[in-house]
Amino acid sequence: MLDRIRIVLIGTSHPGNIGATARAMHNMGLSELALVAPRCEAVTSESISRASGADHLVHAARTVATLEEAVADCTWVVGASARSRTLPWPMITPRELGQSLPAELNQHKFNPPGHGGHEPRLALIFGREDSGLSNAELQRCHTHVHIPTNPDFSSLNLAAAVQLLAYECRLAALATQPMEPTDEARSEPLASHTELERYFEHLERTLIRIGFHDPALPRQLMARLRRFTLRARPERMELNILRGILTATEQCIHPQERKKP
Amino acid sequence: MLDRIRIVLIGTSHPGNIGATARAMHNMGLSELALVAPRCEAVTSESISRASGADHLVHAARTVATLEEAVADCTWVVGASARSRTLPWPMITPRELGQSLPAELNQHKFNPPGHGGHEPRLALIFGREDSGLSNAELQRCHTHVHIPTNPDFSSLNLAAAVQLLAYECRLAALATQPMEPTDEARSEPLASHTELERYFEHLERTLIRIGFHDPALPRQLMARLRRFTLRARPERMELNILRGILTATEQCIHPQERKKP
Repeated sequence: MLDRIRIVLIGTSHPGNIGATARAMHNMGLSELALVAPRCEAVTSESISRASGADHLVHAARTVATLEEAVADCTWVVGASARSRTLPWPMITPRELGQSLPAELNQHKFNPPGHGGHEPRLALIFGREDSGLSNAELQRCHTHVHIPTNPDFSSLNLAAAVQLLAYECRLAALATQPMEPTDEARSEPLASHTELERYFEHLERTLIRIGFHDPALPRQLMARLRRFTLRARPERMELNILRGILTATEQCIHPQERKKP
Repeated sequence: MLDRIRIVLIGTSHPGNIGATARAMHNMGLSELALVAPRCEAVTSESISRASGADHLVHAARTVATLEEAVADCTWVVGASARSRTLPWPMITPRELGQSLPAELNQHKFNPPGHGGHEPRLALIFGREDSGLSNAELQRCHTHVHIPTNPDFSSLNLAAAVQLLAYECRLAALATQPMEPTDEARSEPLASHTELERYFEHLERTLIRIGFHDPALPRQLMARLRRFTLRARPERMELNILRGILTATEQCIHPQERKKP
């Protein structure tokens, strides 16, 4: 189970935090680290020193330019977040994250043999030391996880936040025996992050063309549609249906309308 | 409850770890730090920097020469330990530590009025970065607490160990209070059954008009869309958006298409 969990750090500034994150991960049995547009070198004397024996995770970390690349193949994307301010988003506690893992990462449940779906995989996203995750990044997450800190002093060290969530994941993994699938509600593979993003792009394009959406006056429309859609955890086949509806809509647009960009 | 928990560090070597411990404590609402025979200065530029705003805990830390002095007034002394080797000792998990707190720190249980007993107080003891707690120190503890780390890489950073145990203490303290709702996702009323059914009627009508759906060959289309939508438990405002999209779609349909029933 722990081998299907990826830690994703966005825009990290301090090599020491990357090293300390590697140590925290290895302590809890996690091994997959991705760095999105880091604002520092990952491999430095400080990061290796703070990794304290887990430097193989620092060396093996995959560095990518965008969040998209880091989570493209993930079926569950969870962002570490302070309490949301503008648009509330589904929010769980670290313990609930652990409790959800067996179901979310049970391969047989979401990826029936022969269906060619993505292997279930969790990405845990952590933001910048100074400013956390942006709203756009938070809105790419299925769910946010909030560590219940002291409200007067809520900013955790990056590696400490990773440590706490990795700990809850480890406890969940230790508590889990190999499970037979019992929940048959899911017969189809879940959509991956990339498939979801392609759908949202298609949706936005279509909404603009039918005159429902004006990107100059977004009024949180796409954020609301994202939240609604991600909450349902769409299956790949469902997304195919939704995209089919968008294509059929485009084909029906009045030629005069169709000329609009 | 959290104000009756003291963190005790024995023989710490690195000022950075003292600062990071202060930060971890303050993040979780703990405030009492004792240093037993530290092997470094507590207040240095590094410890203040790593405390990252919790430096008042570093300045207020009490430095003493012996473990005895640090825990003299405590009613429960728990040592953070790797699995004990020589003499087995009562051992709990971090979660069990948290679960025990309400009973252990219940003032009326241990300090009946007029008995002049000590106020119940927990000391959590952490050993040296390189060698942990000595056997003599471990044997001064009522109980040991073991963090279930990766057996191949079990040595946690000192502040990370403090962070994890402080987190379990904080969760236990929060659980004894009336809980704040953690799920902020629901700020809007949910759609009623009738509103949902009106939406599904509108959706089906529109899908027929854009030529995506043929009621004579339904192929479970509406059932799949229902299942997807209901899974998300739509809010009334979200349904309004979805119905707005359907209306905008109808208004864009090519006149030739529009003539279809």
